[in-house]
Amino acid sequence: MPVKMGIIGYGGMAGWHHEHSAETPGLEVVAAYDIDPARIAKAQEKGLKGYDSLRQFLADDSFELVLVATPNDAHCRLVLDALDAGKHVVCEKPVTLTLRDIDRMIETAQKNDRIFTVHQNRRWDKDFRIARDVLASETLGNVYSIQSRLHGSGGAMHGWRGEKKHGGGMLFDWGVHFIDQAYTMCGWDAFTSVRCRTANVKTTEVDDYFHLQFDRKDGGEYVVEIGTFVLKELPRWMLLGDQGTAYINGFARSGGVITLDNAIEDEPVIVMTSAGPTRTFAPRPDGVKTERELPDPDCHWTDYYKNVIATIEGREELIVKPEQVRRVLATILAAFRSAKTQKQIKL
Amino acid sequence: MPVKMGIIGYGGMAGWHHEHSAETPGLEVVAAYDIDPARIAKAQEKGLKGYDSLRQFLADDSFELVLVATPNDAHCRLVLDALDAGKHVVCEKPVTLTLRDIDRMIETAQKNDRIFTVHQNRRWDKDFRIARDVLASETLGNVYSIQSRLHGSGGAMHGWRGEKKHGGGMLFDWGVHFIDQAYTMCGWDAFTSVRCRTANVKTTEVDDYFHLQFDRKDGGEYVVEIGTFVLKELPRWMLLGDQGTAYINGFARSGGVITLDNAIEDEPVIVMTSAGPTRTFAPRPDGVKTERELPDPDCHWTDYYKNVIATIEGREELIVKPEQVRRVLATILAAFRSAKTQKQIKL
Repeated sequence: MPVKMGIIGYGGMAGWHHEHSAETPGLEVVAAYDIDPARIAKAQEKGLKGYDSLRQFLADDSFELVLVATPNDAHCRLVLDALDAGKHVVCEKPVTLTLRDIDRMIETAQKNDRIFTVHQNRRWDKDFRIARDVLASETLGNVYSIQSRLHGSGGAMHGWRGEKKHGGGMLFDWGVHFIDQAYTMCGWDAFTSVRCRTANVKTTEVDDYFHLQFDRKDGGEYVVEIGTFVLKELPRWMLLGDQGTAYINGFARSGGVITLDNAIEDEPVIVMTSAGPTRTFAPRPDGVKTERELPDPDCHWTDYYKNVIATIEGREELIVKPEQVRRVLATILAAFRSAKTQKQIKL
Repeated sequence: MPVKMGIIGYGGMAGWHHEHSAETPGLEVVAAYDIDPARIAKAQEKGLKGYDSLRQFLADDSFELVLVATPNDAHCRLVLDALDAGKHVVCEKPVTLTLRDIDRMIETAQKNDRIFTVHQNRRWDKDFRIARDVLASETLGNVYSIQSRLHGSGGAMHGWRGEKKHGGGMLFDWGVHFIDQAYTMCGWDAFTSVRCRTANVKTTEVDDYFHLQFDRKDGGEYVVEIGTFVLKELPRWMLLGDQGTAYINGFARSGGVITLDNAIEDEPVIVMTSAGPTRTFAPRPDGVKTERELPDPDCHWTDYYKNVIATIEGREELIVKPEQVRRVLATILAAFRSAKTQKQIKL
């Protein structure tokens, strides 16, 4: 028997969930609720039961799992109602805009003994998995700087994502993924403090650029930079280690792992470059750098739902845990505080 | 009559100064003092009067200008002695390691009515001048992020630059230039605070990597990142503006100024990328980005000495002013404090 799911908010992301659910064995989307009649009609065209009443939707016992895929500011009330109706809940990210709201969600899930999780699907992104595998391989030695970037040329935040009241802005929209990745990669107690700077490049109400640095407990740093209007893209990932450097260009498997053939202890000669006389920045002779292919981990976004299903069926432990989601939200709020106060904030 | 110069410390940098002085009209190097007989011999081979006694060197009235080009920790005493001997003084960078010492230098120069300046020659670097010209051209609109990077593969800091007692390390060695450039580009009161993280990648005693962010009074950020062991080099400069992006690859004139042809206000469609469904990061169609050549400013390191000479001769105002040098040193010390305390430091 597949786990059946109903969707609240049949907009852009819901369509994506619906499409991907078809690729997820053991998951079937059966119903949708929306406040917009056109979207209900669209859900019905796709073969779903369409509801214009939340009460009636939640009373439908043909599904046990609910996806909340509305604008961010509407998540909390809907998640609470769904949990109180006895449903398990997957909520779109960012889960909510305040710690008070996430705490209510977590309590309500516990009270009803239901599963509550958030769609942090980018833990299964190819580029992220590659970066994590490179880190784990220890090829790079001590990785003193991890740099996670995304540069696009689209410009402004679109639709409700450009509006403050709906919880728009880049830190909430993509920051929530990249910060979740940072914790997943380094550990949930890996960071001691955060500094963040935001900008309003093309969007008036909310941030559409941010640049954030974590200080790591092990002495390294973790950088996240996302901009919607950077016309020269830097690599998606840079991993700077004391034994080598890895770079990943975009979301796919493109880039390399670079190490040196000869011992770095060789004393370089002073070279006259366009930088002036330098040993430190003297170019290395050709051929001493070795570039290897990136690893090729097997991963897919449907792995997220596979784990949700297995958790509902009692076969696995939940991967995206509510307390992790809370930690990411607390970090985003700390980053906003840092940007506002120009202080580095302890985590 | 050319201005005549004597050099204290005839090592690696002194040779460079000597060579460049030959290209500087109106400057002539005539003498050198060193504690190492081999270096005195080398200076003599190059046609200079060689001194093994500082007292005798400073008593030589055939030159009025002294260059101090020793390891950093020896600068202060030598600068004071030269000023007290009635010489004008150019000191190598970083001028010294404490504010107390630079204050003594400034006071001593004033007391003796002598010119005192520091060799911040990278204000005349081609790449820096290009970046400054791009910024001034306003092609990029509001430049919300200025990123100044230098990545090399040389590894460790070499010689005394790897030793703490001599004031080694990357923040002192190259940071002093890039921070001086930052102030020169944005203004001497442009930054409100600094956050910095250092690393010991290949060097035990001193930092050989640092990553620093200034908060700018106008709301933007200015980033400086220098590493001796980054095997995939990012561009030397990235200027992120709300109307375009400029990048400069290295120290020479390589890179471009990128703007968009069409109005960014065009609503992009949702595109299914390897990143998932996205409007913000949907790739732009080909041909809407325009890349223009970088400007080609005329500049040369000898311009530094030309100004020193013109200042001695009363024809120009000193460009590299002692109070600016003090400001850069105070900023480096704040950056070290930030790295140590994991706090953002007000400037």
